[in-house]
Amino acid sequence: MSGTQLALIQIDNYGPWTVSPTPRPEPDIQSLQSRLYADLCQQIGNHGGYVFYTRFDNMIAVTNGFDAAMFRRIQESVRNRYPVTVSIGAASDPSPGAALERATAQLQTAGSAQDGSRREVLAVEDERGAETVTIAHFDLVDATGRYTDRDMAYEVFIEIERAFGALMRYFYRTHGALSFFVGGDNFIAVCPDISTEAYRSAIEHVREETGIDLQVGVGRGHDAREAGMAAKHALETCRAEARPVTVQGARAQTGD
Amino acid sequence: MSGTQLALIQIDNYGPWTVSPTPRPEPDIQSLQSRLYADLCQQIGNHGGYVFYTRFDNMIAVTNGFDAAMFRRIQESVRNRYPVTVSIGAASDPSPGAALERATAQLQTAGSAQDGSRREVLAVEDERGAETVTIAHFDLVDATGRYTDRDMAYEVFIEIERAFGALMRYFYRTHGALSFFVGGDNFIAVCPDISTEAYRSAIEHVREETGIDLQVGVGRGHDAREAGMAAKHALETCRAEARPVTVQGARAQTGD
Amino acid sequence: MSGTQLALIQIDNYGPWTVSPTPRPEPDIQSLQSRLYADLCQQIGNHGGYVFYTRFDNMIAVTNGFDAAMFRRIQESVRNRYPVTVSIGAASDPSPGAALERATAQLQTAGSAQDGSRREVLAVEDERGAETVTIAHFDLVDATGRYTDRDMAYEVFIEIERAFGALMRYFYRTHGALSFFVGGDNFIAVCPDISTEAYRSAIEHVREETGIDLQVGVGRGHDAREAGMAAKHALETCRAEARPVTVQGARAQTGD
Amino acid sequence: MSGTQLALIQIDNYGPWTVSPTPRPEPDIQSLQSRLYADLCQQIGNHGGYVFYTRFDNMIAVTNGFDAAMFRRIQESVRNRYPVTVSIGAASDPSPGAALERATAQLQTAGSAQDGSRREVLAVEDERGAETVTIAHFDLVDATGRYTDRDMAYEVFIEIERAFGALMRYFYRTHGALSFFVGGDNFIAVCPDISTEAYRSAIEHVREETGIDLQVGVGRGHDAREAGMAAKHALETCRAEARPVTVQGARAQTGD
Repeated sequence: MSGTQLALIQIDNYGPWTVSPTPRPEPDIQSLQSRLYADLCQQIGNHGGYVFYTRFDNMIAVTNGFDAAMFRRIQESVRNRYPVTVSIGAASDPSPGAALERATAQLQTAGSAQDGSRREVLAVEDERGAETVTIAHFDLVDATGRYTDRDMAYEVFIEIERAFGALMRYFYRTHGALSFFVGGDNFIAVCPDISTEAYRSAIEHVREETGIDLQVGVGRGHDAREAGMAAKHALETCRAEARPVTVQGARAQTGD
Repeated sequence: MSGTQLALIQIDNYGPWTVSPTPRPEPDIQSLQSRLYADLCQQIGNHGGYVFYTRFDNMIAVTNGFDAAMFRRIQESVRNRYPVTVSIGAASDPSPGAALERATAQLQTAGSAQDGSRREVLAVEDERGAETVTIAHFDLVDATGRYTDRDMAYEVFIEIERAFGALMRYFYRTHGALSFFVGGDNFIAVCPDISTEAYRSAIEHVREETGIDLQVGVGRGHDAREAGMAAKHALETCRAEARPVTVQGARAQTGD
Repeated sequence: MSGTQLALIQIDNYGPWTVSPTPRPEPDIQSLQSRLYADLCQQIGNHGGYVFYTRFDNMIAVTNGFDAAMFRRIQESVRNRYPVTVSIGAASDPSPGAALERATAQLQTAGSAQDGSRREVLAVEDERGAETVTIAHFDLVDATGRYTDRDMAYEVFIEIERAFGALMRYFYRTHGALSFFVGGDNFIAVCPDISTEAYRSAIEHVREETGIDLQVGVGRGHDAREAGMAAKHALETCRAEARPVTVQGARAQTGD
Repeated sequence: MSGTQLALIQIDNYGPWTVSPTPRPEPDIQSLQSRLYADLCQQIGNHGGYVFYTRFDNMIAVTNGFDAAMFRRIQESVRNRYPVTVSIGAASDPSPGAALERATAQLQTAGSAQDGSRREVLAVEDERGAETVTIAHFDLVDATGRYTDRDMAYEVFIEIERAFGALMRYFYRTHGALSFFVGGDNFIAVCPDISTEAYRSAIEHVREETGIDLQVGVGRGHDAREAGMAAKHALETCRAEARPVTVQGARAQTGD
């Protein structure tokens, strides 16, 4: 059965904190945010999950198999090492978008993100049984040759942002899939169980809207790590064989 | 005189590294990238500069007052603590876009970003004399009330991405300004010396293209820190007085 | 049954690396070492283990319940984020000293710590079944009042080092216990199953050799985390009730 | 003229924090401490200084050329990224011990290290003019061959601790020099202007008390970085030429 547990990790009362009592230096804010994200990558990654920085103050994680105690340990570890705390909402659904919607609603019900007295909320829906996660790993076809080595750095950045924007909107609207920019020219999407044709259509859509060619490897597994590694290997096949879509994943690993 | 030193910091041969000999786990890649960025924030910030993560493998920094020895120290420090090395190109110009264009060209001349034998290139144009940096700090009007506390987390993310995309393209095309998403609902733009009216037009453009209301504080100073802090204070004025554009900066600090 | 799994984590060929091709700056070496240690604290801690920095290039960990795959993941994570690699040897025994001796021997058999071609050795003895770890947490009686607030900082440091030296040597010689300085005025010892009287004797010995008064909380558990937290609570009892030895641990938690 | 600025960096009210409201997990405390230290290494190192972890909650730094604004920036950066704050006292003297004594006294005058209301004290004595720092870098002769590759890891650790204890006490008592263990088998001492013979005597003393052979490279410079790098190069000469004491430093650099 296909299903993904999505978690919303929200820094409590962060906006006000960044300007209290007066605005804090940007380098401190940036390094606080990116280190907190790095730590969550490792802590969640050690249990097979993925986390995306998204807005940094609202991070989104794929956490199949996590229970409340694991999230509580994350909250404790953040509280003990950072000047901020985090609230976490989590829910499971065959549609990543639907899962995140319920995860979000749970935090919103508990109070505003800028309510100074709302701290370390933890709201985890009962988790389902054995589920399958689908991860799609996209990148630009020959990004270094076509863009990085040829165009001005900021123009390359604009192009990648355009491709990402087109993909994220299309994929969310049509399938409730959640796409994230993960650096370089890489996008990772958390997907429901959709057809190979659906990936082809997404690539086609991005090309039409932006003129940019994407390729994608798709993997499935019991958690984000398993699905994500399968997706990376599938993307390597795209590169080696110059084909835009490779779906691998659980199939290759379990023989079904 | 207005002028900004822009530096392009590029991880050497990074794409191939991430998949050699086989794809590396995403949590390790993410934490490597975001910690390297956090360290550069501090190291560059300690000398008054700003750095933006941009694509993570290609970071863009505002480095007025930096000389070759300071960049070399950055390269050494990265080499001594990370499994990757960085190349750096830097140039100054009244137009941030023009400065970054020359900075980029210097690295491109030295070889491909994925040339395994191109390592730790350092190409720094002679720096100009006393110059003024302009930083504009944007955010969404009442983002928490209108979006974060009301909409599903990923839809908020889509909206912020749309606003950012509209701003980055417009501002670069019309003024050669470089805009960066810095987390939450904040965008920081490195600008040439433009009029208050130009900021008003940018906000107007984003509203027309996306329906999203931005506000902006603008600061000027001898380096990114000085200009950036003035911009933050100006943005506080926008919030307090509910007006969309506040230009402060060097004026308030030097009395001119 | 009492038994502790001890792991020796050794940076490969580290000495030569620090001076190749010329000596590397001390701040880079120090931050590399201490961040690697911090990461291992979290990664090992997330699975219930403790790690001590010891010499930094040779760290010692209590890793009950860890199998080869978990150690391999640690090696991979270090390799992916640092410019160095680590070898690991692990063994279990009722005596922590005996366990570490076998763990050490396994690495030594594989080659010299400064053999450039010996990299990422992993040698894990078969782990035993359900075992009990004993952790003793010592600190100085009223360290702040008697020392930190009164004496010159370096003289306080000398006193703490003297107390630590006396404890580490006595405890290792008499019981094969391994003691580590963990900051402030705190020492943590990994112990075999010894009597309350044995802790009293250790404190007595340190007082006689150095004139310094220690107190100790002792905890037992299935892993270092459980035993270590029980020890901390026991030490709080020492502070509250002004008695030098409190043995708690598994007893208080399981009711036996 | 010889003179060293020493700074005592003390985490405010740290002991109580580690057990409030209940004892915090050791892995969180350890990673908090060692990352804070790593950050200070970089931040102080970027301005030519050295910092030693010492007790972690009381760190000692060599900060020639630092003024109050630089220390205030360190305090701000810690406050913005960690759940703790730091107080700093600094003073200069030809004797490192005397400098640290006055630095310590300034903090003690301001209140107890465990006074909850004493936060972010900054007490910096007026700095002197151009001064010379002396750094001595010791290590064990053939530590890997004689110890690491042959003896059980903890016994090696005991030996290194014994050598360090003997050196630190002798050197402080006879010369007011401050010695620190910096990992591996390395000790760094901040020294007044003493003769080559004095280093020979220190090595002789350690051999007599512990049977362990040390060697030392000595460097001088305008700040810790300059002196420390010269000391490292001098120690390389000891290794290459098998002689126990090499004094280089300012001499080699300035020609005197």
